[in-house]
This record gives sequence, C-alpha cells and structure tokens, in this order.
Amino acid sequence: MSTALLTSFETFCWTHLGQHPGAVRERLSAWLSEDLGHGDATVRAMGAMTTSAINGALVAKQNCIVAGLPLAAEMLRIIHGEAPAHGALFASEVMVPEGHKADSGATLLRFSGIAAPLLMAERSCLNLLARLCGIATYTNTVAERVRQCAQAAGRSAPRLLETRKTTPGLKIFEKYATRMGGAHNHRLGLDAGAMLKENHLCVGAAAGHSLQELTGLVRDQLPLLTGLEIEVTNLAEFEQALEAGADVVMLDNFSLADVALAVQRRNALGVKTLLEISGNLDRKPVEDLVATGVDLMSMGALIHQAPWTDLSMRLEPLPS
Amino acid sequence: MSTALLTSFETFCWTHLGQHPGAVRERLSAWLSEDLGHGDATVRAMGAMTTSAINGALVAKQNCIVAGLPLAAEMLRIIHGEAPAHGALFASEVMVPEGHKADSGATLLRFSGIAAPLLMAERSCLNLLARLCGIATYTNTVAERVRQCAQAAGRSAPRLLETRKTTPGLKIFEKYATRMGGAHNHRLGLDAGAMLKENHLCVGAAAGHSLQELTGLVRDQLPLLTGLEIEVTNLAEFEQALEAGADVVMLDNFSLADVALAVQRRNALGVKTLLEISGNLDRKPVEDLVATGVDLMSMGALIHQAPWTDLSMRLEPLPS
Amino acid sequence: MSTALLTSFETFCWTHLGQHPGAVRERLSAWLSEDLGHGDATVRAMGAMTTSAINGALVAKQNCIVAGLPLAAEMLRIIHGEAPAHGALFASEVMVPEGHKADSGATLLRFSGIAAPLLMAERSCLNLLARLCGIATYTNTVAERVRQCAQAAGRSAPRLLETRKTTPGLKIFEKYATRMGGAHNHRLGLDAGAMLKENHLCVGAAAGHSLQELTGLVRDQLPLLTGLEIEVTNLAEFEQALEAGADVVMLDNFSLADVALAVQRRNALGVKTLLEISGNLDRKPVEDLVATGVDLMSMGALIHQAPWTDLSMRLEPLPS
Amino acid sequence: MSTALLTSFETFCWTHLGQHPGAVRERLSAWLSEDLGHGDATVRAMGAMTTSAINGALVAKQNCIVAGLPLAAEMLRIIHGEAPAHGALFASEVMVPEGHKADSGATLLRFSGIAAPLLMAERSCLNLLARLCGIATYTNTVAERVRQCAQAAGRSAPRLLETRKTTPGLKIFEKYATRMGGAHNHRLGLDAGAMLKENHLCVGAAAGHSLQELTGLVRDQLPLLTGLEIEVTNLAEFEQALEAGADVVMLDNFSLADVALAVQRRNALGVKTLLEISGNLDRKPVEDLVATGVDLMSMGALIHQAPWTDLSMRLEPLPS
Amino acid sequence: MSTALLTSFETFCWTHLGQHPGAVRERLSAWLSEDLGHGDATVRAMGAMTTSAINGALVAKQNCIVAGLPLAAEMLRIIHGEAPAHGALFASEVMVPEGHKADSGATLLRFSGIAAPLLMAERSCLNLLARLCGIATYTNTVAERVRQCAQAAGRSAPRLLETRKTTPGLKIFEKYATRMGGAHNHRLGLDAGAMLKENHLCVGAAAGHSLQELTGLVRDQLPLLTGLEIEVTNLAEFEQALEAGADVVMLDNFSLADVALAVQRRNALGVKTLLEISGNLDRKPVEDLVATGVDLMSMGALIHQAPWTDLSMRLEPLPS
Amino acid sequence: MSTALLTSFETFCWTHLGQHPGAVRERLSAWLSEDLGHGDATVRAMGAMTTSAINGALVAKQNCIVAGLPLAAEMLRIIHGEAPAHGALFASEVMVPEGHKADSGATLLRFSGIAAPLLMAERSCLNLLARLCGIATYTNTVAERVRQCAQAAGRSAPRLLETRKTTPGLKIFEKYATRMGGAHNHRLGLDAGAMLKENHLCVGAAAGHSLQELTGLVRDQLPLLTGLEIEVTNLAEFEQALEAGADVVMLDNFSLADVALAVQRRNALGVKTLLEISGNLDRKPVEDLVATGVDLMSMGALIHQAPWTDLSMRLEPLPS
Repeated sequence: MSTALLTSFETFCWTHLGQHPGAVRERLSAWLSEDLGHGDATVRAMGAMTTSAINGALVAKQNCIVAGLPLAAEMLRIIHGEAPAHGALFASEVMVPEGHKADSGATLLRFSGIAAPLLMAERSCLNLLARLCGIATYTNTVAERVRQCAQAAGRSAPRLLETRKTTPGLKIFEKYATRMGGAHNHRLGLDAGAMLKENHLCVGAAAGHSLQELTGLVRDQLPLLTGLEIEVTNLAEFEQALEAGADVVMLDNFSLADVALAVQRRNALGVKTLLEISGNLDRKPVEDLVATGVDLMSMGALIHQAPWTDLSMRLEPLPS
Repeated sequence: MSTALLTSFETFCWTHLGQHPGAVRERLSAWLSEDLGHGDATVRAMGAMTTSAINGALVAKQNCIVAGLPLAAEMLRIIHGEAPAHGALFASEVMVPEGHKADSGATLLRFSGIAAPLLMAERSCLNLLARLCGIATYTNTVAERVRQCAQAAGRSAPRLLETRKTTPGLKIFEKYATRMGGAHNHRLGLDAGAMLKENHLCVGAAAGHSLQELTGLVRDQLPLLTGLEIEVTNLAEFEQALEAGADVVMLDNFSLADVALAVQRRNALGVKTLLEISGNLDRKPVEDLVATGVDLMSMGALIHQAPWTDLSMRLEPLPS
Repeated sequence: MSTALLTSFETFCWTHLGQHPGAVRERLSAWLSEDLGHGDATVRAMGAMTTSAINGALVAKQNCIVAGLPLAAEMLRIIHGEAPAHGALFASEVMVPEGHKADSGATLLRFSGIAAPLLMAERSCLNLLARLCGIATYTNTVAERVRQCAQAAGRSAPRLLETRKTTPGLKIFEKYATRMGGAHNHRLGLDAGAMLKENHLCVGAAAGHSLQELTGLVRDQLPLLTGLEIEVTNLAEFEQALEAGADVVMLDNFSLADVALAVQRRNALGVKTLLEISGNLDRKPVEDLVATGVDLMSMGALIHQAPWTDLSMRLEPLPS
Repeated sequence: MSTALLTSFETFCWTHLGQHPGAVRERLSAWLSEDLGHGDATVRAMGAMTTSAINGALVAKQNCIVAGLPLAAEMLRIIHGEAPAHGALFASEVMVPEGHKADSGATLLRFSGIAAPLLMAERSCLNLLARLCGIATYTNTVAERVRQCAQAAGRSAPRLLETRKTTPGLKIFEKYATRMGGAHNHRLGLDAGAMLKENHLCVGAAAGHSLQELTGLVRDQLPLLTGLEIEVTNLAEFEQALEAGADVVMLDNFSLADVALAVQRRNALGVKTLLEISGNLDRKPVEDLVATGVDLMSMGALIHQAPWTDLSMRLEPLPS
Repeated sequence: MSTALLTSFETFCWTHLGQHPGAVRERLSAWLSEDLGHGDATVRAMGAMTTSAINGALVAKQNCIVAGLPLAAEMLRIIHGEAPAHGALFASEVMVPEGHKADSGATLLRFSGIAAPLLMAERSCLNLLARLCGIATYTNTVAERVRQCAQAAGRSAPRLLETRKTTPGLKIFEKYATRMGGAHNHRLGLDAGAMLKENHLCVGAAAGHSLQELTGLVRDQLPLLTGLEIEVTNLAEFEQALEAGADVVMLDNFSLADVALAVQRRNALGVKTLLEISGNLDRKPVEDLVATGVDLMSMGALIHQAPWTDLSMRLEPLPS
Repeated sequence: MSTALLTSFETFCWTHLGQHPGAVRERLSAWLSEDLGHGDATVRAMGAMTTSAINGALVAKQNCIVAGLPLAAEMLRIIHGEAPAHGALFASEVMVPEGHKADSGATLLRFSGIAAPLLMAERSCLNLLARLCGIATYTNTVAERVRQCAQAAGRSAPRLLETRKTTPGLKIFEKYATRMGGAHNHRLGLDAGAMLKENHLCVGAAAGHSLQELTGLVRDQLPLLTGLEIEVTNLAEFEQALEAGADVVMLDNFSLADVALAVQRRNALGVKTLLEISGNLDRKPVEDLVATGVDLMSMGALIHQAPWTDLSMRLEPLPS
C-alpha cells in the first residue's frame, strides 16, 4: 500500500468517516458553489492570466490539532476538474497527519495547481478546515485535562463524549473532529441508540407508563445491537433506571455528591450499567468530576464552544 | 396585514433573507433528516403514545439577542407534515422579535403540537437557533462597544462588517444573524463584488500587470452595480489603490498610525473611496480603532468566535 | 367540478402535461431561486414595507396566443409560501384560457398578494410566460397558414409537427406550447420512438447492415407501442424504407417534386406508412409544401426561431 | 387526538418509521415521476374529461397482512396537488390497520378524488403496496410457524429477524414491512451496530490480529449505545467470541447439534451474549430450529423470497 | 474496439439501457449511501488495517441467468473513489456475459481492490445483482417453456412481455433484466404508448364517449411514433376495439376459447392489430396459452414473483 | 501551461463563468438525461454495433459568433463516461475560439469517440450550442452597429448591456453568450445590485416614502460593494434620483430629446451617476440613441429575440 493511498481523501472517507467518497465529494462540491453564486466576479474579470500554474500551502497561524486536512485538499482538487485528462493539474502533500499537533507557523498542506481554482476555493476550504481544527484543538485541551486529573488521582479516566449539539449539515464532520481531539462519540443520530430523556419520560407518564414500563416497551422494539440510555434527574429515578436495565444512565444536573452515590450504588449491585454525567460540565472543576468515578462525561461544549483555528492559504506564482 | 403574517416564516424569508420560502424550507427539511438517519429509534419504539397533543416552549437560558426564531418555528412546523388537512396540528407564537434582547429565562416561542414530531425535531431546531442567537449576541456586544466608543469620542461610528468566514452551508443564515446583532454585510459571495486581495495581485504581477493596470482590466469586466475593493499592505500600495479608483480599500495589518495617515490622505484628496480595516480586530482596543476615523471595520470573529447561546425546549403533555 | 379546479395549476399539469404537479412545482421553484441567488437585495433592504397587500395583473403588450399561464400563476403562488395557514395570501384569476388569442393590452391574469414575493418573482414568471406564449404565437401563425393553403387547395392539411430542437431543461414546456399554437408533437425524447437517421444508418452500414436489415433488427428490439421512423435522402432509400416497413419515412432535403413522387408511390402501393418532410421548411412556400400531399411537416423553427411575447406585470398597492 | 390523525400518513411516518414526513413524501413523489416520464400519454390525450370527480378503492385479491397503506394513500393524495386550496379534492379512509389481516376481496382503502391523478398514480401506488404487503404476509407465515412450534415445544420462541438483504432504495420500507409481519429488525444499516463477519475477520487476521484482539480494538472505537456482533463458523471460534465479549454471536452454517451445544455452553457460563442463527433457514424445519433454544433467527428470505400480494384499484365515476 | 470497452459499465449503459452512464452512476451512489448512513461502524472502528489490497470474487450459489453484472462491478469501483489518481486501485473482470447462464459455484466477477470499500459495498452490490439475476432467471424459465410449447405445437411462439409492475425506483433495471431472460418490453412508462384500460374507458363513458369515439379522440392527440392499445373484457368490446383501429388489443380475463375466437376474427379481417393476453398467466398451462395463437403474453409475475438469486462475495487478503 | 488546458472545459468554467466545473457538469448531465428518458430506443435496439469508434465534427451552417463550444464538447465527453480508465475514448479539438467568427461551413469542433454516446448526445449538445451561438451572433450585430455609429459620430460608444430577461435555467450561460457578442452584463440576479423600479417606488410611496427617502433607506441596508440603480419615467423623477445619489439612473421610455436633456443635466452637475436607457431599443435608430450621449443601453432583445444558429454534427465511422 503506497503512502499516497494512506493519506488520500478516499482512505480518509473509508477509515475515518466510514463513508462513500462520492457522497462526501458531493457535499464539498455544494459548499464550493455556495460561495461562487453566479460566478466569481474577480477571477472572471481577471480572465486568462489566472490560468497560470502556481504553488501554495495551507499554514497554521496558531497551535492546533489537525482535523479535516484531506477534506480541505479534496476541495482544492475537485475545483480543478474531475476530468481524467486534467486531474494532474493539482497535486498536494499532507504535512501533518490527522489528530497530530501543529505549531503556529507550521505548513499543513503543500500543493501545486492553477491560480484560478485556488483563488475561487480558498475561503470555502479554509472555513471548513478552521472549524474542524478548532473543534479538535478545543477537545484536545479538555481531554488532556481529564487524562491528567485521572492520572493525578490514580484512577482510570472517564471517557469524554461529545453530544448531538452539532452544526446543521456538519454532523459527521464535527463528530469526527472531536475524535481527533481525543473524545469518543455519543449517538451519531436519533437512529443510533434509544434515549429516554426528560421529555420522553413525560410523554410516557402522560400515557400512564412508569419509567420501568416504558423502558420495557421500548427495549422490546429496538433493532438488534441498539442500546438504551435513560436520563434521570434524581437518585430515586436512578434506582428505577438501574432496575429497568438501561445500558447507560445519564445523571442530569446531579450534584457531585449524588454522582458519587450513584456510582457506589451501581458498583454495589455489580451491574454493568454505565453512568454518564452531562450538563455544562465546562463550568465545573475537572478534578472533581473525575473524582466521582463516573464512566462517561458528555460535553456539548466540545463542539459548540470551540473557536475556529486561525489558518491561511499562501500562493506563490511560479517564475514564467 | 395581520400580525400572523408579520411574524411568519414567509415574511422572514422575504424581508430578512430576500429568499423564496420554499428554498429555505428545503434546507430545514434536509437538516431534520440528517439527525433522523434510518429513523428515530426512541419515538418509533414508543409508538402510538407519542401522538398525543402537547404544549411547549423554547426558552433562553442566558441573556441573548434573538436571531432565527422563525426558522426554528418552521422546523417544528414542517415535521408536523405539510398536508393541508393536518397543518393545524402545530401552532406557535413568537414572543421576542428578531434582533431584540431576551433575558435568561425568557420564553422565545410558545407552541402546541404533537409529541412525536417535537421530540424528533428538538435537537435540530435548537442547534440552528443556538448558533444564530450566539452570533447575534456576540456581534451585538462588539457593535455596542463600537457605538459607545464613537459616542465617547464624539465621532460617527465606523460601520461594523462581517466577512466571508462562515460555516459551510450556513452562509446566508450566519450573515443574517450578524445583521440582527448590529453589523452590516460585506460581500455575500465571490459573485457579489470584486476584491483584489494579496493573492490576486500576486497573480496579476506574475502576468506583468501593475496594481493599477489590473484594477483597470478588472473594472472593465464587472457587471453593472458591482463594486471593486483592493487590499493593500502598505501606504505605497494604498496610494496606488486610491489612484486606481477602487470603491473600497482594505488596509490589511496596518498599524493604527498608518490607518490614521491613510484616512487623512483620502480626506485630503476629497475622493469617495471607503477605507476598511481588518485582521484580528478583536485583539485591538476598540477605542483606538474608532479613533483612526476609518469607515469600515470587518471582523470574521463575529461569526467564527461566537459561542452558542444556551437554549432549551420544554414540553408539557396536556391533561388527557 | 368547480371552475376553480378547471383553471388550476393541478389540472394544467394533469391534462396538458400528463405530469405530477409536485414535480412541475419543483422546477418552478428552482427557477425562482436562480434569480434570487444570495437573496433579493432590493426587497431585503426595503424590509417590512414590502409586506403590504397588493393587487396586480399580467398584461399582454402585443397580440399573442396564450400558453403557460397556470405555470406563471403558480410561480407567483409558491413564492407566497406553501404553508396552509398562509396560502390565502395569494389569489388569482386566469382571464384567457390556454391556446386562446389575447390582444395587445389584454389582461391575462389578475391577482392579489403581497408586494415582497411579487417583486421577487416578477422577472422569472414573465421570462417563462413570454417564452411559451412566443412559441405558441409563432406556431399559430404557421399553423394557420398551413390550414389556409390546404383549404385554398381543397385538400386536407398536413399535420404540423415540432422537433426535438428544444431549449435544454424546457422540453416538455416548449413542446406543450407548440400544441397550444396548433402543432402536434413529434417524439417527446429519444425513448419515445426509434428513428434511424443518417448517422444511425451510417453506423449500421459500417457494421455491414443494409437499411432493411437494420430496420428489422431494430424493430425486433423495440418495446410494444413504440413506432419506427426512417430518414431517407433520396428516392432509392425511400423505396427501401417503405419496403422495410417503417411507420413513418422522413424525406430529408427532398425537392418538392421528389416529395410528390414519394407520395404517389406510397399511395400506389396502398401502404399505411406516413411521409414527413423536414429541414428549413420556414424558407419554403407553404402552398407548395401542402401541394405535395405529404402527411407531416416538422419544423424546428416553431421553437427555435420564435421571439418572446412582450408582457408585463403591473402592481397596484391597496389604499391603506 | 382525532381518529383522522391516528391513521394519517404523518402519524405513520413518525411512529412506524421515525421519519420526517416531508422526506418520505419526496421519495413517493420521485416514484410517481419515474412512471410518468415525459407525461402520461393517455391522460393527456383524453384531456378535460379526466377532471371529473370519482370514487375508488384499493382491494385485496388474496389474503394478506397489510403494510404500507398510508404510503399508498399519500401517493394518491400528493398527485392531487399539495396546494391548500385544492387539497380537499382527495379524501380517503383506511379500512384495515397496519399489520392486520385482510381477506381476499376486502377493501383496504376507500377514497374519492379526481380521475386524472388517480389514473396516473394507480400503478406506482399498487407496486409499492403489493411489495410491502407481500413481505408482511410472507413474514407473518414464518413468524406464526415459529410461534406455534415454540408453543408446542413449551419454550419461548426465538426472535425472528430480517437482514440487510433489502431492495436498493427501499430499505426502511421493507424493514418496516417485516415488523408488521411479526419480525424484529436486525441492523438498519452499516452504521447501526458493528459486525465482524468472515471477511472482516480475514482482513484482521491478515493484519496479524486475533479475533479477540480485533474485537477489543473495534469495541473501543464504537459510539456509545452501539453493540457488537461476531460471526463464527465453528465452536472454537464461538468460544473466542464469547470470551471477547460480543453482544451477539452469529452461528453461521452450524449444524443444529452444534447450535444446541453453543446454547448450552453460553448458558453454563451465565453470560448475557445472545446467539443468532442464519443462512437459508427457510430450508430447515422450524421445529428443529426452535428446539435448539437459540435466541435469534435471522432470515433474508423474509424480504427477498416474498412474492407480491395481488391488489387492484377500482374506480367508479360519479353520476354527473 | 478493445475487449475492455465491450464489457465496461459505459457500454452497458449505452447499449443495454440507452442511458447516460453518469445518471446511472448517481443511482448506484445513492444506493451505497443508503446502507452507510452515518458511516460504516465496523470499518471505521477497524481503521487503517482495512486499507490493505485484496482480491475477491462474486460467486453464484445457484444456477442462474446473469443480469446486471456491470452495475455490480461499477458499484464496487465507484466506492473506491472516482479520483483519477486512485482509479487504478480497483480492477475487475467480468467472467459471464449478460444474459448467459451461470452454474452454481461459478465465478461471475473477479476483482482486486482495497478491503475497506469492498466491505462497505458488499451488501448493496449483492442486493442489486441478486434481484436482477433473479428476474432474468425466472423469466428465462418461462420464456423457455413458451418456446418449447410453441415448437412442440409447430407454431411460432407468442412474444413474452413484462408489465409495468416493477419495484419503485428500479423500473429500467428490472425491465432490462427481463430482456436478459428472454422477454420483450411492454411500455416503459405512462409516456411510452397510450393504453385505454378499464378505468379509462369508464371515465370516457361517464363523459358520454363510446369506446370508438374515445379511441379517435386519443389517437388524434398522441405524439408521432406512439402506439395505442385497448383493453377489452369481452368479445363485443373486442370488435369495437378492432374497428377503432387499436395497434394492440389486450384480452383481459378472456377464456382460452374466447382468445382463440378473437384471434380467428382478427385473422379473418386481415387487420394488423396485435392481440395480447394478460392476467395471472402463471396460473394457466403454457401449452394452452400458446395454442390460442395469440401474439403477445404479458406477465407481471416475471418481475414480481421472481425470487432473488443466491450470490456471495468472497474476499482474499493478499500475502503482505 | 499547455494549449490543452487553455481550451479546456475547466478553464472555460473558471475564467468565463467563474464557476466550479463540477457544478456546470451536473447541469450538462441533467440536460442529457432530459432527452434520454427511459433510455434511447434506437441505440438500445441497435446494440453492440454502436460501440464502434468514430470520428465527427460540429459544423456551422451559417455565419456566426461562437459561444459555448467547451460546454458542447464537455457534453459529448461526459456521456462517454467519467471513469478514468475509459476517459480516453473521447478526444476533441476546438477549432474556433470563443467569441470569434465562424463562417458557414466552418468546422467548430473535431472529435473522435464511440458511436453510441455521440448518437445519444447529438441533439442535446446542438440545442445548447445553437442557442448560445445564436445569442452571441445577434448581440454582435447590435454591438457592431453601436460601435460604428459612435465612430461615425466621433464619440465614445455607450456600453451595450443585456438584461435579466433570460431563459429559466440558462441565466449564466445566456449572459455569458452576450459577452462573447460584445455586450456587458447588467445585474446577474436580484442579489447582485439593488434596483428601485416602478413597482418598488410604488410600494415605497404606499408606505409614505418619497423616492429620496426610499433611496436612503435602501442604500443603508446594502452589502458592501453593491450598487444602487433607480428607474425613472420623467425628468422630475430624474432630478430626484440624481440628488438621492443613485449609482445608475435608468431613463425608462424617455424621448430621445429627454435623454439628451438628462445627460446634459448630469454633466452640468459634475456627478458620477451613470445614465442608462432601456425599453424596446431594437425598434429605435441606433445612431439616434448614440447621439444622446447616454452611457448605457440595455436590451433584453439580445437574448430573447435571438434566433438559434444553424449547426450540425457529422459522424464518420472509421474503416474497420
């Protein structure tokens, strides 16, 4: 297997996203068109002089964890045209592997191509990459802090999870970026696991079903290999959820003391149910969260509070 | 004209976005599907009990400027089904007009509907709204600061502009949100004005064209009503850009002193060219920026550094 | 059945196009978006004042045959929003039935609606209607001339046919417009009948197949109810095509005398094969064409030489 | 909650599919267009006489289990047009609830509408319904047989599962139909659970990973609530899979005796792993399968060997 | 012309489907995505080890007639990525031409590629191929039986036709598969020929039109090269249909004796009208059907009663 | 930079349209499918004999200005298949650069390829090219006349502009064609500049706003680099528009004398406002229009009155 394959867009789609490259390419293509509208006025006005060959690079302007570079490179490639005869106009080399750290000033991607498509795709390409690197970078900071606190406390670190608080249209990409930052994925969508949250329990109760009845009804309908999680707001509900046999129980807005009690109780019973805490965890001391012994920490902030990474594209016309 | 119309999704599309409501609806619909995948496992498992009528509300959990509420309401409406016979299942009332402030705890939207679609759309709806309110809120903070500094200094405030640094797929929505926060729009896309930035000038130079020649060539090709902006990096280039007759000159990474010099020079010449500053303005004192007398301040940060607003959906089953 | 139904867009789609109204609506919607791009700058800037109720009309500025009015009306309706709750904002009345003549100054459609969507859809709506009325009007002139010549000559008129020379994306609409002008349809697409034209015969010959062999091979493969036409360029080929049993023979670039000979020959044989003439017929005297006794005259010019009809939209704000 | 809602297309989409009705409607609409092509030649030629009001019914011509009736009804409704003003042209009443038995001759749906759209949609509507009822009916036969064998043997019935052997483009509908026939769903797609099948184990082995190592690696990467299944081909692999901690083990092509041994072993160990048999089960005696005590039986045949149910649409013009 | 071209997907699209390969590719791509959802969980979790090169084959597990192999091969190819630089990762060789017989155990396609995309596309690819081979195989059995009965009876075989009873979304593929099995195509859609069936005649009668009037009206409106068929239910209607000049008359639910009478009558009149029988023909003795001398036998069962062919994909990692 | 690149479809998309080639290719692909429907009946029936290699050419049958040739060539290329392995089946050479004159009989494009796809794409390809060449040719006639009149009068020529009267779906292509004929572009869409036309002023007046107030309100809301034009119908309104500071004033239906007065007035005031005339200019003497000294002449006729250019495709099978 050549190195070229291992850093390619196709490999990225298969092994990082589990996706058909053609489907991902369609979305990149749509994002390019969003910015072009009726056509790039500047490039069209400059005309033939923009068809010169050119070198360029994507450069980090701050320290970051890299995520999405093969997507950015593919965006530049596809605007060069998908025709076999002209595919060779664009070539690129990834300088930093996904999930690795890049220092401010580091070159992330080197490429050579044609000026016109590069000028047209620059902003769309940077917008996507800056968002994904921003998420990976922010996630990494949190993940590192969790790891260090656990190490300091001499216990295994809880698993850091993102949530379904993702930007419309970017779900699989943003969830991927958190993995590069060191988090694991919670449900990928409403089809990927059942969750009985406060509003669901409420609807169930209105129909006369206790938490346990509802859990039984739901579990019986789920497809094979699909787990069930219950969100509880106090220790009484927690007991019911344990008994009902949830795979995971989310302790919502529990005090740290109550979290610790819940962990003890679960351990005492010797059941395999995983315990998850959630809800503005970015405002609480990580060491205290870790100290509770909880299994899972889910934080929407990994995605929705992450600022973009500052990046730029540099072009360098070749001597003619 | 009834009040109903004036707060409707349709009016929002026309007067705030200038768009065909059907086209906007298609995107909302696609975002709903993104989260549903093969189908919401929980609602499907709960079955018929989720078809009960229910009341609900979208509530702010922190102070914010509201942006995108008709989009959020429409998302809830369309998942109720677009069939005329059943359209009346969902009804909603906007409690805070677009661009207005909402305090933490305020109800933004009241609605009544059916449990199933509300449970299915809750997250997608909140994700969009939290992003747009977040941008409007962050922009408002900056815009207010600019206004106050200008007032304190007894001069007219420079116009605050966003940039093309928008999330892929959300451009027209994010640019709208900055307007609600008090900013004005820069170019809506690469077709909406010509800009000769550093990379363009570079390509032009490689083809043997001076900044002035290039400006002339480009201006001659532009469609009617399409303006031209030139990005310059020093005072010498600035002089050329003024002479070349740009509608706007962007002073990139100019020291504050040089910005002030540029303003003086422009004023002395009595030309109408507008001057814009850009580049990590969020890291500089607003009062100093205002003091330069520059006309336009463009800040990508209005969009890409804005954290989401914390919002929630509350559902309340009716007594049966 | 109410009159409302009989002039509605839905009835138009079913009985004039044989189409699902939803599929037609999608195309109208896409055409609206084409002109709106990032959003109508004027309406967005005017804002709330454009939400006033307004009356309006589509008016003919020259004599014409009407075609496509329900499509134009639907374009105006759908930009008003498809939500049941707001559907009543737009109402319209068709003043001239499809295929009828309208004099210069005649009102084609009266409507009431909201200013914003009407301002936004005006041009797209007129562009479609002006194209279709233009085709119907031009076709009607030719069809009338054919009818009159036939009447004068005391013989039955040949059938006037359009061709597959249609504007990309508008095929079913342009072919419809020719029907309103008095023509009949040739093939609706490459799937709707087999034609062995010069290039096909050439390819067949290169593979060693005579016209008759090729005809046999092709006829054997065709789906049921799908006819076969052969294009011939001289009388010898014509004989072969007759013998091979084509349903229609197209006499391409035949002199008028040869057309007449072909008709005689066909009649003498007593076969049912129809004879068609084609090729810049707009440059030949109609009376001579009719005099040949040919069955079918196909003219691409009905579509591709038809100038648009001059139309306008008039809006009249209501007294507030 | 009115009865109308409970049998509506919208409720069907939410509670049976977990889907946004608008997304399902788009697919129904595309299927209508597939058959219409350039436009229904017969209805277009018949013209205005097809706009008369008419009554009709969908009727079973053999005994069956009903599945997909709200989809069929919606297909008829949407071709009547989605415009609010004309929505009332079509009305329908479901006569047999989903999953219930209908005898030959039974009326499944009564409706009134307009002749043109009904003639145009008849075949598309029946094609979908006949396929889904066929699957539900065939599944039901198998499910009943399993239930009876289990009852006769005095043991709990194994769960009957369908597989991912579904017709391209119809996955969620066909999987739904099996539920109506009494089966449960296996994975809804490749994202909905991990399975290490023979080919995966092979690839893992080529990279030097034992079944257990591979299982560990994979489990560590899975999103929360996503289970893991391993396919094994002999008892030795079965032991490894049990030890590796799979949620489900699929016993592929095991003899019935080996299945029984595996069940004993699992029970003896007291682990919760579920055991599944698969592979042309339709060719083996159900009582023997049940007798093994296995938990799950998956059968692709439920979908891919199911013949269509014979159905017809009857139209009855109203006296004018 | 190289052999490579003659077995390629492109040639298949042109000469077997008459389609643009790009349009067919889009549908294959959508079918791949249907199964992948948020991304293949197993491949994503296995990661880089799935990027190894691998050999494989599609193998028949029962006797069958091959149909759709270039489609299946193309599905495997496109998930390898369409980028020119990586296109060479996948190569395949068709071992059995379309329409030929393959014995159980036969290899249909050999290929080499990358493990990840092959694991991801395996099921989608087999689902399509198993369906199409199933139809071709079942059709072939019937077609052979018809041929043999005709031979035995010393008369020409009636043409075997499929019907419009096709799976939604698969029409052109399923109709193709019947051709590979030895049938001919009836109408490809509602636009490809006019048919006056029972429901149409009913609507016509309600508007006061006799069968003959209606036939005249319809024929006058049809595009050139589009034929007309009439469905009749008794000999009296049959006489009218003959007289009205239908191209084809369908004898619906005629007794075999009446079919024979109709054939005699048609022959006696010396008209060219073709006679077709239809309606659960799979339940009647083929020799009796053939003996009637009818021209056409249409059977929906060729498609809707055809079970899938059992096929599998075998992968074989290369020694590293 | 190789010659191949400079005449390629990609370069065309970038420098002439400012577009992503992939987005343009999608539209070409859709137009191909429009004509193919259920599949080309003739090519499918001819079968394998159509896979022979063949040479061909696009030829002008009348004098014209060439526009859109790379689009036509790409249409032929993409139907040959986009697979890298087979891309070389089609090769073409552009014989006349865009915007140049071709005489009747001139070869515009030479190519070699496969018979089947060429037969299938011939009409779609010619339809697009004939439309675009027709527009360029007609525009060129007008532009030349304007240039000559200006030269004769010894004054600079007014700029010739097209309008938004474009065929639905073809806007960017038709606007491009006018550039090749010598015109400049007016607004590319409703987002590309604000225009206060009669209907807008009317709506503004109904809300109590004078032309000047309305202009101020609108200008304040426009994005940067977006200009403003006002349409006036008499000299009084013209004065207001000048004062309000429009970038362009359109003098609608002004007499030539009034146009001249307006020009004088503008010149006397020394303001930069451009003056545009519009409205059936094709019916007025060009020399009189030029003599007014107006800056801009906009003519919808450049697009909507342009007849197609007569073109043909010639195929020549290679000796086998």
